[in-house]
Amino acid sequence: MTMQDARMPEMPENTQVGWHKGYITGSRPDISVPVRRVHLTNGRDVTLYDTSGPYTDPNITTDVRRGLLPLRQNWITGRGDTGEYPGRPVRPEDDGLKHTAPRGGLRNLDAVFPGRPRLPRRSRDGQPVTQLGYARRGEITPEMEYVAIRENVSPETVREEIAAGRAVLPANVNHPESEPMIIGKRFLVKVNANIGNSAVTSSIEEEVDKMTWATRWGADTVMDLSTGRNIHTTREWVVRNSPVPIGTVPLYQALEKVDGRAEELTWEVYKDTVIEQAEQGVDYMTVHAGVLLRYVPLTARRKTGIVSRGGSIMAAWCLAHHKESFLYENFEELCEIFAAYDVTYSLGDGLRPGSIADANDEAQFAELRTLGELNTVAKRHNVQTMIEGPGHVPMHKIKENIDLQQEICEEAPFYTLGPLTTDIAPAYDHITSGIGAAMIAWWGTAMLCYVTPKEHLGLPDRDDVKTGVITYKIAAHAADLAKGHPGAQEWDDALSDARFEFRWEDQFNLALDPDSARAFHDETLPAEPAKTAHFCSMCGPKFCSMKISHSIREQHGGTMDEIEAGMREKSEEFAAAGNRVYLPIAE
Amino acid sequence: MTMQDARMPEMPENTQVGWHKGYITGSRPDISVPVRRVHLTNGRDVTLYDTSGPYTDPNITTDVRRGLLPLRQNWITGRGDTGEYPGRPVRPEDDGLKHTAPRGGLRNLDAVFPGRPRLPRRSRDGQPVTQLGYARRGEITPEMEYVAIRENVSPETVREEIAAGRAVLPANVNHPESEPMIIGKRFLVKVNANIGNSAVTSSIEEEVDKMTWATRWGADTVMDLSTGRNIHTTREWVVRNSPVPIGTVPLYQALEKVDGRAEELTWEVYKDTVIEQAEQGVDYMTVHAGVLLRYVPLTARRKTGIVSRGGSIMAAWCLAHHKESFLYENFEELCEIFAAYDVTYSLGDGLRPGSIADANDEAQFAELRTLGELNTVAKRHNVQTMIEGPGHVPMHKIKENIDLQQEICEEAPFYTLGPLTTDIAPAYDHITSGIGAAMIAWWGTAMLCYVTPKEHLGLPDRDDVKTGVITYKIAAHAADLAKGHPGAQEWDDALSDARFEFRWEDQFNLALDPDSARAFHDETLPAEPAKTAHFCSMCGPKFCSMKISHSIREQHGGTMDEIEAGMREKSEEFAAAGNRVYLPIAE
Repeated sequence: MTMQDARMPEMPENTQVGWHKGYITGSRPDISVPVRRVHLTNGRDVTLYDTSGPYTDPNITTDVRRGLLPLRQNWITGRGDTGEYPGRPVRPEDDGLKHTAPRGGLRNLDAVFPGRPRLPRRSRDGQPVTQLGYARRGEITPEMEYVAIRENVSPETVREEIAAGRAVLPANVNHPESEPMIIGKRFLVKVNANIGNSAVTSSIEEEVDKMTWATRWGADTVMDLSTGRNIHTTREWVVRNSPVPIGTVPLYQALEKVDGRAEELTWEVYKDTVIEQAEQGVDYMTVHAGVLLRYVPLTARRKTGIVSRGGSIMAAWCLAHHKESFLYENFEELCEIFAAYDVTYSLGDGLRPGSIADANDEAQFAELRTLGELNTVAKRHNVQTMIEGPGHVPMHKIKENIDLQQEICEEAPFYTLGPLTTDIAPAYDHITSGIGAAMIAWWGTAMLCYVTPKEHLGLPDRDDVKTGVITYKIAAHAADLAKGHPGAQEWDDALSDARFEFRWEDQFNLALDPDSARAFHDETLPAEPAKTAHFCSMCGPKFCSMKISHSIREQHGGTMDEIEAGMREKSEEFAAAGNRVYLPIAE
Repeated sequence: MTMQDARMPEMPENTQVGWHKGYITGSRPDISVPVRRVHLTNGRDVTLYDTSGPYTDPNITTDVRRGLLPLRQNWITGRGDTGEYPGRPVRPEDDGLKHTAPRGGLRNLDAVFPGRPRLPRRSRDGQPVTQLGYARRGEITPEMEYVAIRENVSPETVREEIAAGRAVLPANVNHPESEPMIIGKRFLVKVNANIGNSAVTSSIEEEVDKMTWATRWGADTVMDLSTGRNIHTTREWVVRNSPVPIGTVPLYQALEKVDGRAEELTWEVYKDTVIEQAEQGVDYMTVHAGVLLRYVPLTARRKTGIVSRGGSIMAAWCLAHHKESFLYENFEELCEIFAAYDVTYSLGDGLRPGSIADANDEAQFAELRTLGELNTVAKRHNVQTMIEGPGHVPMHKIKENIDLQQEICEEAPFYTLGPLTTDIAPAYDHITSGIGAAMIAWWGTAMLCYVTPKEHLGLPDRDDVKTGVITYKIAAHAADLAKGHPGAQEWDDALSDARFEFRWEDQFNLALDPDSARAFHDETLPAEPAKTAHFCSMCGPKFCSMKISHSIREQHGGTMDEIEAGMREKSEEFAAAGNRVYLPIAE
């Protein structure tokens, strides 16, 4: 397959209806933070967090074959602690092609992504170049100021949270295209969308398109979980075009390099893969270093065994060699690599439960304790770290997960997959898990990994990605509200005001998904006058409770005393006027 | 419109694939409780609760124009405390037709539902004929035994919970077609689906079809909230064909009878409407008797005022007359009517919050305290009673709702609408509310009123009804799990076992929605062999963690000691065998 004909990602038609992309400038002109400004018909604006990148700015021309502009490049070079170097050569097997493939089967891989603009970059002297390191030294980086503006908090708050290890700002020095964002319980709850082709289906174009599509609807980070062919090339296209941090599971690619034989995995192959991906600009990597040999038998009598791909691969490796994994044994060296590029750890929960029956069991919590130890090691190397969490957990067992993780991992950000609160609804696991996600985020999870309707059944398509992202934005925002995040309720209030005042267009434009809200309304009341009608098709014009409330409000404004005093008088007027609080239905 | 051509409700094609309708017989042959028996490919059966009525029994011929068989008729007549009587005459205005309509515009209403089989029935001597009354006298009715079988508890438990007012068994003596079910926190969490035409859209056929469709997917009760024309006739068709209890809000029809003028509502019109509906067989009625005059000003400075239709109508009435409502003033007489037919109260929360901003405010909780007083009055009359709850509530304010309701209303069943946990997602309010519904049900809500994707935007169509019901079955079941309801987890375990053992057909057939689960799987792996494949399209054959787990399990069965002892030996065997824990991908 050639990528010369890769499509421009399609933007939804209504992108620019009712809102525009705005920017807030920081202390220097190149700190320019994008926001979504929704224009209300009453003349006001509502400013919302925006993850959609330059694609929604009509003043910026994007070209998927050249990639996005490197907005962080000057900040990175300006720090003077990193330098370019030739980088490792890209090899056919990086793309899952056989060493033994016929020569005609290999293409010039440099040509595959035409726009690759820079040599890779890493720490100049082996010292950490991480946001954690800077924060601990008391430095407020442009990245920190950027997220402070996004989150509407002080830059010092951002620096403190990162320095304490309670938040991460994933920002590989080789992904200067990304717009800084922060993951931590003091900030807005974030949502990750997984994309990735597999051996069975999907293509590079589709994955790039899914990435821009996911961020269009609010994904804060994207994980590329590709496992099949073209794995290196797909990643290059995704990273170069991504305005959000990109995460991966390097183990998947490493396994491809040893032809799928888990026992042939070595530290050398894995390390080479990590460097390959770090040079491309991957911002955070899932590492299943907590799967210890002695934990594997704890899973033997589980209902669903090990359901994490990475976890099962590492378990198989440990069994084959009867020793602790190369990830665990070489964790300190891995930290040094991560520190040299500012790759953030996402310490994987390889033994997470895959069913209600297996939730909160010994295997799961044993691994969590090991992740706590690894978190301490990573922090010693100034590597930013978050901890992954389940999975499948019934509601009454959810809180124990976040409480234990926060205690064991010194409040490092928790990054959970759902959890799914029941197993009985395949095709609706965005909902079974959205319930658990909202609850665990309220209680402290910093980032939620989305689940789509295809979970357990197949790979998500474009519609599934959108449904998954929207569902998880709901869970995240419900949690922001419950946590009392400053400013979170303003959005709800703006929408409810619009609803009460029958400003239909404002309701649509303020909705998480304006297109669907508008379409659903128009199914029964499509005519343009219905957009200003003081009723909807749910009750029809005769029974509109909102309208009756307006009548009550008109009669009972003012202070409580005035209301009490005025009640009888108003009541008499009301009766005299015929008490028509709603329009008669047209006969 | 004529109903002569009303369609038979369509059943989904896959109704009888992988499961069949079974019955469990009680202490007498006419106590025959329907269940759904799912046949697994491993030879086992899983028995699930079934709400779909005779429509899914291929041995029963149903005719929507004749109605269902009156399975409770002999139980009702056998008690000897009720008798038939002529009933009130059905009048044109019962169907929302004008008194002044031209004579040619009136049809013979008796002909509209051809199958009406019986005269109405009521208490013979004015004494209560309610399940609460029987329970308090120590009687275990056939209805109680029926639900005991359905819930897998003892009949005495059912009687006790009803007698204590902690559960209701809605069973109007004029709805003998309904299959008894129970609503109470000690039992499975129930789901109600709203249907109903409005002045703007929908027809009788559609509403009957939506009722059978909703129960097909698991709705435990259905509320007919029709507000437009043919309101009496629609209800007759719905009740005669419904295997589940039917609820209504009589106020909507009463308002039609006074041409939409709230102030012209009188106790006489309302009472006439309640009797009309009680004679038809409505099992529970929402009554907004808790809206007191002094509470109305409390809503004046709310963000979204009064959002309950019934609440706003009663508020307008109270203002117009400057006195307490005819519902509140005549509540004792209303109790006597309810007791004579065994209509169950659903005491409406007319002042429920319609936005996050208004949750848990003074107006809402003031009304709740009044509902507590009315609950006490109703119980004195032996009338079964449940209490309606919100609405829009952020997660951190949900628990206060159920705790306060249980305290104030002496543990009467709580029946909540969601609650929605954020306002920002019109078109996804099944999800914003599914989150709140699962949580409040875990904490004690007995029945959840569903919300569909069309909430706030329009009337639900067939697909919306299904999505709403499935979403709420998820919430209800997640709550059953979290409450530790006996047997709830068996369903999850059966599905997870099927998943782990790659029994795809069993996964589909055990799913809440087998059709969608199968369709999603088949999108990427449609071929029949994929149904027995030991992988899916999510990871492809190379990375299947489940398969790796099987390998681990095979090596590490037995006790923990045996596992420990066997680990080194097995490890060596594993290595010698090539460590191939998954199939190589086909090249």
